[in-house]
Amino acid sequence: FHNMTPNNQHAQQQPSASPLSSPHQSFPSKYPLHLILSKERQSSNIGSDTSSLGTLLASPGLTSHQLELLSQIPSYPSHPISHPSRFAQFIHSLHLSRYAHTQLVKYNIDPQVPQNDVFINFMDKIDEPIPLFMHYVMFVPTLDNQADETQRRMWLDDARHGRILGCYAQTEIGHGSNVRGLLTTATFDHDTDQFVIHTPCVEACKFWIGALGKTATHAILMADLIIPANKGKPQKSYGMHAFFVPLRDPDTFDTLPGVEVWDLGDKFGFHSMDNGMMKLNQYRIPRRNMLMRFAQVTRDGDYVRPKVDKLTYGTMVSTRAYLVAAASRHLSKAITISIRYSAQRSQFWQAGDDGRDGSTPVVIDGTTPETSVLNYLTQQHRLFSVLAETYAFMFTGHYMRQMYTDLMAQMKSGDFSTLAELHGTTAGLKSYVTARVLDDIDVCRKTCGGHGFSNLSGLPQIFGDFAAEAIAEGEEYVLSFQTGRFCLKTFSQVLKATGKECEDLKLGETVNYMKDSKVLLQSTLDAQSVDDLLEDPFQEGQSEDDDVLINILRFKALQLLSQAVTKYQKLTNGQQTNNTSAVDNEMGMDLYRIMKAHCACTVALCFKRHRSKILKLTPESRRAITALYQLYCLNRIEEDISPYVLDGFMNKQQVLLVQDAVRKLLRQIRPDAVPLVDAFNIPDETLRSVLGKYNGDAYRHLFEEAKNSEFNHGKAERILKATLMREIQPILRSKI
Amino acid sequence: FHNMTPNNQHAQQQPSASPLSSPHQSFPSKYPLHLILSKERQSSNIGSDTSSLGTLLASPGLTSHQLELLSQIPSYPSHPISHPSRFAQFIHSLHLSRYAHTQLVKYNIDPQVPQNDVFINFMDKIDEPIPLFMHYVMFVPTLDNQADETQRRMWLDDARHGRILGCYAQTEIGHGSNVRGLLTTATFDHDTDQFVIHTPCVEACKFWIGALGKTATHAILMADLIIPANKGKPQKSYGMHAFFVPLRDPDTFDTLPGVEVWDLGDKFGFHSMDNGMMKLNQYRIPRRNMLMRFAQVTRDGDYVRPKVDKLTYGTMVSTRAYLVAAASRHLSKAITISIRYSAQRSQFWQAGDDGRDGSTPVVIDGTTPETSVLNYLTQQHRLFSVLAETYAFMFTGHYMRQMYTDLMAQMKSGDFSTLAELHGTTAGLKSYVTARVLDDIDVCRKTCGGHGFSNLSGLPQIFGDFAAEAIAEGEEYVLSFQTGRFCLKTFSQVLKATGKECEDLKLGETVNYMKDSKVLLQSTLDAQSVDDLLEDPFQEGQSEDDDVLINILRFKALQLLSQAVTKYQKLTNGQQTNNTSAVDNEMGMDLYRIMKAHCACTVALCFKRHRSKILKLTPESRRAITALYQLYCLNRIEEDISPYVLDGFMNKQQVLLVQDAVRKLLRQIRPDAVPLVDAFNIPDETLRSVLGKYNGDAYRHLFEEAKNSEFNHGKAERILKATLMREIQPILRSKI
Ligand SMILES: Cc1cc2nc3c(=O)[nH]c(=O)nc-3n(C[C@H](O)[C@H](O)[C@H](O)COP(=O)(O)OP(=O)(O)OC[C@H]3O[C@@H](n4cnc5c(N)ncnc54)[C@H](O)[C@@H]3O)c2cc1C
Ligand SMILES: Cc1cc2nc3c(=O)[nH]c(=O)nc-3n(C[C@H](O)[C@H](O)[C@H](O)COP(=O)(O)OP(=O)(O)OC[C@H]3O[C@@H](n4cnc5c(N)ncnc54)[C@H](O)[C@@H]3O)c2cc1C
Repeated sequence: FHNMTPNNQHAQQQPSASPLSSPHQSFPSKYPLHLILSKERQSSNIGSDTSSLGTLLASPGLTSHQLELLSQIPSYPSHPISHPSRFAQFIHSLHLSRYAHTQLVKYNIDPQVPQNDVFINFMDKIDEPIPLFMHYVMFVPTLDNQADETQRRMWLDDARHGRILGCYAQTEIGHGSNVRGLLTTATFDHDTDQFVIHTPCVEACKFWIGALGKTATHAILMADLIIPANKGKPQKSYGMHAFFVPLRDPDTFDTLPGVEVWDLGDKFGFHSMDNGMMKLNQYRIPRRNMLMRFAQVTRDGDYVRPKVDKLTYGTMVSTRAYLVAAASRHLSKAITISIRYSAQRSQFWQAGDDGRDGSTPVVIDGTTPETSVLNYLTQQHRLFSVLAETYAFMFTGHYMRQMYTDLMAQMKSGDFSTLAELHGTTAGLKSYVTARVLDDIDVCRKTCGGHGFSNLSGLPQIFGDFAAEAIAEGEEYVLSFQTGRFCLKTFSQVLKATGKECEDLKLGETVNYMKDSKVLLQSTLDAQSVDDLLEDPFQEGQSEDDDVLINILRFKALQLLSQAVTKYQKLTNGQQTNNTSAVDNEMGMDLYRIMKAHCACTVALCFKRHRSKILKLTPESRRAITALYQLYCLNRIEEDISPYVLDGFMNKQQVLLVQDAVRKLLRQIRPDAVPLVDAFNIPDETLRSVLGKYNGDAYRHLFEEAKNSEFNHGKAERILKATLMREIQPILRSKI
Repeated sequence: FHNMTPNNQHAQQQPSASPLSSPHQSFPSKYPLHLILSKERQSSNIGSDTSSLGTLLASPGLTSHQLELLSQIPSYPSHPISHPSRFAQFIHSLHLSRYAHTQLVKYNIDPQVPQNDVFINFMDKIDEPIPLFMHYVMFVPTLDNQADETQRRMWLDDARHGRILGCYAQTEIGHGSNVRGLLTTATFDHDTDQFVIHTPCVEACKFWIGALGKTATHAILMADLIIPANKGKPQKSYGMHAFFVPLRDPDTFDTLPGVEVWDLGDKFGFHSMDNGMMKLNQYRIPRRNMLMRFAQVTRDGDYVRPKVDKLTYGTMVSTRAYLVAAASRHLSKAITISIRYSAQRSQFWQAGDDGRDGSTPVVIDGTTPETSVLNYLTQQHRLFSVLAETYAFMFTGHYMRQMYTDLMAQMKSGDFSTLAELHGTTAGLKSYVTARVLDDIDVCRKTCGGHGFSNLSGLPQIFGDFAAEAIAEGEEYVLSFQTGRFCLKTFSQVLKATGKECEDLKLGETVNYMKDSKVLLQSTLDAQSVDDLLEDPFQEGQSEDDDVLINILRFKALQLLSQAVTKYQKLTNGQQTNNTSAVDNEMGMDLYRIMKAHCACTVALCFKRHRSKILKLTPESRRAITALYQLYCLNRIEEDISPYVLDGFMNKQQVLLVQDAVRKLLRQIRPDAVPLVDAFNIPDETLRSVLGKYNGDAYRHLFEEAKNSEFNHGKAERILKATLMREIQPILRSKI
């Protein structure tokens, strides 16, 4: 990953024969914005080490051979920076689908998700939500997982090679979160050995389905399986099952008789995706189009229950791991733009510019004209907090893939013991990480001031597209409750266990800290100084799972859990109650807060699990990464500090220490900010931002690209002028 | 305002002869979504009182005669719900400009901002950022304020009637926040008695200027006034001054020689606005085109200093008041959509549905099929918190207009004593309110689950458009510092004053509470129960400026201030220092936090200042409004609770009381949630949301409008099919 485009980047550098003169003398720049980023790089501590940071950030599953392969695949050469209309974007998206497929074939990449890291990294290069990806990320893996052997032989090869293109059709107008409430029916017809798929009411229309609107030839469709009365057995509904459903004639792209499909129109983002709506009218498919690896319906209309269906959870865990990794990638783009631009943006003079002690002032031509906004502590706090999260979430993504791989291996050997933990933890991580990333992307936009509002900055598109991923695959609060409940259950188990029993409890690694609750909850914080808080978490002898900051984070989760247990007992009067939904509702806000505290611990753990790799860095890089880890933890501590204070875990002095420690870290990170985003190694073609280019010169790029905007040329300009004459001139000429 | 469209709304109601059958039997609905909102209204406590709530919410400056007039003006009849492309939107926007002008003339409305409340309410009806509004909101008021009498006679009448259309051109590529750093020059030419306006470098290009891109014939342009060496005096720059600059030939809309203008292209929102960029090449205007009410340049090239220029601050205060009012209006749209939709959206069954005790379950046909998501406490917490802010910010907008009017009256009589307070307080309120509203709008979108992501929900557009207002007219942090510093200064004054001196200090009403700091900072909270926290803040004998919650809010502001004073003294060693910028930077995060705490107090105060009107409501409505007030305050207390705990102002028990009180309020608000948004009285044509219509039936509207999307018809559909054949079919047919 890190050495994907080093040559490109060098090629981008301006020839700087006369470093102080702007390359465009006809319309000069006052500030040498084309020099600032290279100065930043030169004067940073870790300057030349971005490639070993790149190794740290690369997907751990990739071999150096694969990295080499990836570096050969070009990014799509000419992504437009500004997108004139959704129509044009979608046309482009179809073109990109074709391009992506050609590259897959050319470089012989196996489009297997989630197994193939190369493919996942390949998708980053295309970097646009195109219909083809829905096929590879949702359709193929589901088929792979839920089709039986015969069905796999029939369909899987075609699907893998793109000879059929599919979508995943679960959500309906009336139900998303509550999958059991879906209303589409699949009724078995004994006579013809078929299923009749039907949309009985408005609420049952499939809705939001990516790639359905225009592109997909097939769907995996979720419907309520109904077997009508037969042989004396009454009609019965068996709940949701997956069906393989042909939708369109691949020769014409017309929908098949009985299938009505519409594109959903404009959205917040995802302009390049054809999310669709579908109504099925007594539409018939063969019985054997129900995916039958787990449950089956026989020719006689007998329903055969699945023996194991836990395997389906595997896909869910892998999709979540994928979404978390994707989230950090989106964020890495946003923060790259925002930090590179902030370094170039200067605003206000400062007497002596002392504001940035601890940082490396960019002195050009002996003067610093105005202060770079990256020297303001508030700007640093906003941006470096996001930077720290970007690293933390990248590591979380890596780690989740590792968990998934381990899970798969265990389940193959019949061991399902960690499934519940994985399910509980990954639901929360998906919810937590995507919600934070969405907010963080908007911080990146806002910290660019006015210019962040232009599509030329790239930031509006990142926000809009990512907002889709933050909602798809599970709404934030609904997922949170799963994690919250899982934590509460585990914690109750721990509370009930005594002594040896507790030690013997088999807990997964993300919840293992709960075993220490008795000790931790009764402790108080020792730290007397900023240095106590900032002791090196990666030092010799320090355990991978432990350090002062992670333990402070854990204290909060445990404090909230123990408070919740008390409340829960009060609500249920210590007894089992039938009225679980009322209690659930009453606990909702607590569960959400627990989820957040628990996920913060997990993210910190994922960071720590990269210890051996971090120890391999140069001392400078290691210090920088350590600061990011510490900043991540301290921000989580500070954002909800009352649990610490209420029980006297921290005193007032220590709360102020936390603030001081944050400020100290900001200063420490400042000189390395630019190289730390360089390490994400996002080529300019993928970044698509006039503000965030590797070589800077933001103002000139902004100026040139703005000039090129649609309204300034050709037909658009002519039509607009005519419209002005028609609509505005009468105002100017009105006589009143 | 409140009686603007009552007839419309009744007309919208479905004929409900057979209440249980959906009106579309051909494609039935399972849930009677067309009935739910009227059931909500019937079973609410305040059901029939939304019109007196409307009075409470109406602009206080409007007479009943004016309200009547406004109710006659139609909203623009056929706003498209979905926007196909920016091009089409901008064409529509020009059309809307014409429509707006016609209405202004027809109803004889004086387009004076900020004086004319009728005009401001009229703009709500157009409800789209159109070029014409930049003219009325920025161009005309600046001209009005800064032109001298002769200039007013020359230009003002034409401007007011739209015979010239202007923009306000301050920001440049290189400078927004730091106005003093602008680089455009206006150099006096002694020989010709002209100013030569020039863009010397890329950074100096005017940028972001609304209505400049295509529409404006003139600009008020800010430039550095330079008077060259003359009569032995050396050349001198006098800083920023405003110039009246013709840009386009109104007969052709071509730019004049020396003027180059471009539209900026696509943006996050504001698609209907032609924000533009401009480069001026030695462009000449007469000397008398400098606005000369304050500073002047004589024929001889002498610069005459302004006697009073504080009057220019008035415009700033009024613009901020306008932006805060506009913010609450945007938010009222978002929350209307989200609450009406949440009432209709049901998800998950609940045993006995006990989750919503305290609320009014909507029972139709004897059954409650699934739980309305509005019955979930987490959903209530997210939405009702926003609802409370909407009311609070509306009241803040009213109050700020009042402050502005008072200020103007005082300044006329030569009294400038409150100017500093107003400046300090309104900077913060603009920053605080717009930042919160932006977040709140996104909460509204997220609480609609997947459907909030569709433009048919209306929510993406509200977010994108409002994001512009959140950045324009001053960046959040930059403005915050002004307020933070003002508070710190005032607080230091109070600290220094002793006894009688302190009592005698003349403080404005928003900072007057600082006088009580000594008492308040040494007090602890008495409250022993939820009821203690929720004592009626509007009861007899309760002062307009005082109650338990507002005092808790003030404690926080004071606690932060006193902490900041200590820190400041430490940084400066108690002495004046030259190095103010380093200290400023060091204090940045503290100032931001102080701004937030102080603004929360001010917003609560603005709410309380509506006491006499609130007391006129029915007891039910008064209870509902009281609950919103309390929820607003409690949320502010809870979001940053550590200042209370650290100094023992609150104990652990009381922190839990705060949480209990919040939950109690949520339950209390639940039955009135729908009527409380009805009271905003936003007609469906303005709301433009399939999810938020007055009569509900969200799913059917979503279905019908999605069907109508651009890609499903005509030419777009044909081109897309051809593209699919070209780009996707080769994938399907590939042989590998
Ligand atoms: C861009 C995009 C692409 C998508 N792609 C696909 C696709 O390809 N295939 C597919 O099948 N689906 C797809 N979806 C659908 C998506 O998965 C769902 O929209 C998502 O899971 C959210 O579900 P919902 O809309 O039902 O939310 P809802 O559950 O309706 O959420 C609405 C509100 O109710 C609250 N709520 C719901 N239940 C509870 C509860 N028990 N307690 C408390 N609060 C509750 C939520 O917190 C939320 O605030 C897509 C959606 C989008 C926006
Ligand atoms: C849609 C839109 C419409 C607009 N319309 C107009 C118009 O009609 N006319 C017009 O003249 N202008 C207009 N503007 C410009 C607008 O007023 C400015 O963009 C806005 O004031 C922000 O200034 P900036 O871009 O210079 O932000 P910057 O100051 O560059 O902000 C960038 C970052 O630097 C930080 N920063 C800056 N100074 C400091 C400091 N001293 N301490 C700490 N941090 C600091 C900020 O907090 C921010 O995070 C418009 C802008 C937009 C987006």
